[in-house]
Amino acid sequence: MNLKTEVKSDIEIARESQMKPIVEIAATVGLSDDDIELFGKYKAKLSADTLKKLQTKESGKIILVTSINPTPAGEGKSTVTVGLADAFTSLGKKTMIAMREPSLGPTMGIKGGATGGGYSQVLPMEDINLHFTGDLHAITTANNALAALLDNHLQQGNELQIDQRRIVWKRALDLNDRALRKIVIGLGGPVQGVPREDGFDITVASEIMAVLCLAADLNDLKARLGRMVIAYNINREPVTVADLDVEGALTLLLKDAVKPNLVQTIEHTPALIHGGPFANIAHGCNSVIATTAAAKLADFVITEAGFGADLGAEKFLHIKGRSAGIKPEAVVIVATVRALKMHGGMIKSELKNESVAALTAGFANLKKHIETIESFGLPFVVAINRFITDTEAEVLALLELCRQENIPVALTEVWEKGGAGGVELAEKVLKAIDTNETEYQPLYDLSDPLDVKIRTIVQKVYGASDVEFSPKAKKQLEEFDDFGWGHFPICMAKTQYSLSDDPAKLGRPADFTVLVRELKPSVGAGFIVALTGDVMTMPGLPKQPAALKMDVDENGQAVGLF
Amino acid sequence: MNLKTEVKSDIEIARESQMKPIVEIAATVGLSDDDIELFGKYKAKLSADTLKKLQTKESGKIILVTSINPTPAGEGKSTVTVGLADAFTSLGKKTMIAMREPSLGPTMGIKGGATGGGYSQVLPMEDINLHFTGDLHAITTANNALAALLDNHLQQGNELQIDQRRIVWKRALDLNDRALRKIVIGLGGPVQGVPREDGFDITVASEIMAVLCLAADLNDLKARLGRMVIAYNINREPVTVADLDVEGALTLLLKDAVKPNLVQTIEHTPALIHGGPFANIAHGCNSVIATTAAAKLADFVITEAGFGADLGAEKFLHIKGRSAGIKPEAVVIVATVRALKMHGGMIKSELKNESVAALTAGFANLKKHIETIESFGLPFVVAINRFITDTEAEVLALLELCRQENIPVALTEVWEKGGAGGVELAEKVLKAIDTNETEYQPLYDLSDPLDVKIRTIVQKVYGASDVEFSPKAKKQLEEFDDFGWGHFPICMAKTQYSLSDDPAKLGRPADFTVLVRELKPSVGAGFIVALTGDVMTMPGLPKQPAALKMDVDENGQAVGLF
Repeated sequence: MNLKTEVKSDIEIARESQMKPIVEIAATVGLSDDDIELFGKYKAKLSADTLKKLQTKESGKIILVTSINPTPAGEGKSTVTVGLADAFTSLGKKTMIAMREPSLGPTMGIKGGATGGGYSQVLPMEDINLHFTGDLHAITTANNALAALLDNHLQQGNELQIDQRRIVWKRALDLNDRALRKIVIGLGGPVQGVPREDGFDITVASEIMAVLCLAADLNDLKARLGRMVIAYNINREPVTVADLDVEGALTLLLKDAVKPNLVQTIEHTPALIHGGPFANIAHGCNSVIATTAAAKLADFVITEAGFGADLGAEKFLHIKGRSAGIKPEAVVIVATVRALKMHGGMIKSELKNESVAALTAGFANLKKHIETIESFGLPFVVAINRFITDTEAEVLALLELCRQENIPVALTEVWEKGGAGGVELAEKVLKAIDTNETEYQPLYDLSDPLDVKIRTIVQKVYGASDVEFSPKAKKQLEEFDDFGWGHFPICMAKTQYSLSDDPAKLGRPADFTVLVRELKPSVGAGFIVALTGDVMTMPGLPKQPAALKMDVDENGQAVGLF
Repeated sequence: MNLKTEVKSDIEIARESQMKPIVEIAATVGLSDDDIELFGKYKAKLSADTLKKLQTKESGKIILVTSINPTPAGEGKSTVTVGLADAFTSLGKKTMIAMREPSLGPTMGIKGGATGGGYSQVLPMEDINLHFTGDLHAITTANNALAALLDNHLQQGNELQIDQRRIVWKRALDLNDRALRKIVIGLGGPVQGVPREDGFDITVASEIMAVLCLAADLNDLKARLGRMVIAYNINREPVTVADLDVEGALTLLLKDAVKPNLVQTIEHTPALIHGGPFANIAHGCNSVIATTAAAKLADFVITEAGFGADLGAEKFLHIKGRSAGIKPEAVVIVATVRALKMHGGMIKSELKNESVAALTAGFANLKKHIETIESFGLPFVVAINRFITDTEAEVLALLELCRQENIPVALTEVWEKGGAGGVELAEKVLKAIDTNETEYQPLYDLSDPLDVKIRTIVQKVYGASDVEFSPKAKKQLEEFDDFGWGHFPICMAKTQYSLSDDPAKLGRPADFTVLVRELKPSVGAGFIVALTGDVMTMPGLPKQPAALKMDVDENGQAVGLF
């Protein structure tokens, strides 16, 4: 294998790449200058008129990229998504990407950017990873405008009789800021607001982000915003945004954020990057509007869902797909040697050492995710995302494990080689679509009771023996039925590191029970969140934040973005 | 006078106006497609290269628009600025506007937009009044990233020995949100941060906004950000952003926000709208970069400064002008019949009634501002900004008062007639420039001690008999000298409604003393704030916020923006 001796950073590779003007990229999928709204030369939004015009067109095929349970560093799902799309393009297929927008908090914290890596990146990576076209800022603003209007309602007489101890709407910032998790506001006397407990979530955890990603159009967005539950009144009845009469103002703040953003890969495949809801507290998929528009513009759409197949893919299929009336034609399950070794019992500091034994033991995790995708009736291909540190013996062993069980698999080297490194995967995905004889089916019906829906996910997707509900959750199951929320799908909030609700249980745990601590209604988004374990909705910064390395050079170019 | 019987709203007038593509507007001042970065068809940023290229060009003449002490509704300074520029254009003068960006907080609260009014507006008004090109969001993000990094420093061991009781850096949102004025953060136990008192300012009150508006270029911006004082350590020594080593990251977050935004008036005069610092806690002028660039691109630049000549103009001349090496060739002092009647003793609810007597009594306020401008050695013209409710008798009386004292004056009807309503004013401004024989001079030298500088402003600009310093301020005067901050200019924080520090003292108060409660170092911006009276850095919302009327119509167009 021809591994480069000197490894370039993502931003170095991105900087050396020659972008085409976005108007040229738009033209490759039949969009004229009037169909897009430029943000500089290399970014654009699809106009509202264009989105309307596309609705009558036929849709292309959607391919969903998911993964095994990841390590904290991630398995390169975005990189595979980009590389696979470039491979499709190189095979002469009219292809688009539909991906999520990065959040600035993790970018400045520990994670670095979220625009793929190596020679499989979307560009301009520094813009996309920083403010991009301002969508997340618009969501932050709408989220906090709602909070300010709510607190002002308390201050100005509280006509709706909101119980200030039962306000569930939190404030948000697109930053990692642990000191804002639990705060007290409204201090300082009668003209400074009503004192109460509050807290900030990271913007991607805001229900407005989920609403934007599930809305069919601007009118649907407004209706969903109006349905959001922000508090309970003194009679314990839900109070909504519509009760506060501000869904119009919030929609106005989001009228441009709702339009998908067009960019390109290093190899000039067009990509719509739009929306980025958390994959724990929300459904972790890019916007319905972008995925749908991409499918109207191209014959093939490569899209991804957050974390492993137990979280993002399950939610794509049960929440996003059902809400939007879309289903994937095939699924790509990304696995890495590194993560499988960890699932096989290796500790993190030893992962650089070769161990076919650990890899073989960890294979069970991949197997479970494969079974999950099969249970939905979807064809799939496993993509082994090769890392430079993987040994030849490990890669061959993993390929052999798959072949022994007749699992369609392809080695991808998209990080190093771009689309050329994903051609085998692309060909196998095309074959999977062509030869597929099964029929997609959800694992639960929306008409099932909430607890049945949760049990179905926990048993069929996680492999748990059963689910347990806390006393609080039990009470909520009844209340939510009374409030008319029983027909919503479930959005599980669970650790991404394990199939179970315990991040320490790697591999394929068995004989475990999942505890649902609490339910949270996301009535605007249209799902009920079931919280298991500790769910982080506002990350913290590490001792050495990535921000310390960020800078601009003397020419005003970004430095230190990864 | 031909007053329309049916008065259209600003947004109706804006919507009916036909914008030209911004590339055409750019071309009128010699900018090519490559010189600008488009944000849709009607907004653009000047590129970094363009800004560099302009530096060697000769500068046009700057005309500063200021006003008397305003009423809460404002005297229409932005409207006169826009109308005057359109009048200049109609006279064949190559003219640009340099204005501030509106803040979303007041737009959603009580004030409505800040893009002029009637037929003297900058367009697209709904975009400019909402997210525009994201500058304020970038500043909010940089402000709060700094706060998060600071709190993370405390959390991770506090190597700099920051005294958590003496952290002066606050968080910010571009919203009116009184409940965030005084808060406690970091609650919830050891992994949730270090508990301490904190608070949010509105973004335009952030020192980063002032820094962005005073920076000469990106390198200067970075140096200024590094100098910002964010806390004091346990030895009471200042701790700066550079000590935290994050000025690079903050600069990266601001690398696009630092580029001025190009838009147009209803009559297609090009306008740079950039930066919008508060005129109390900061200096209240648009960015140096925008004003300088406008002067390189056009023969005449019309710019404005916040509130009355006692605040914005004084700060333009002593802070912005001195820092940037620019000075206006002439000043326009906007006055209204309405405000002068209030200064003459009429109560607000009676202002719609005719009263030449009150107007005559209130004339003293205008006189004082004229004297201030004269003391700087600058030629001026008074602009009477006609409101529809002004009676013929009142307008004639005001014109006569000016004529009696040989005050150059012009009646402007730019709200109703656009540039055509400002031609007389434009001609008088041109004449004032041509016939001017005086020489601009600041009222104080930077080498004067801080207390002398403050006394000079208070006596010469406000007409006070003296200044008094609180014990705290006295102590700070000494400390600030020790810290090497004695050479900075002063940024007075004072009520805009009165020449004194008491908002109730209208007209031209005499025999009053101004109390300086406290000083605040803005070392990055490069000034010392002297706080008098109560200074609001986070506004609240009224009982019926403007947000309640905001909406989008079925075509996705903005509704209810004023």
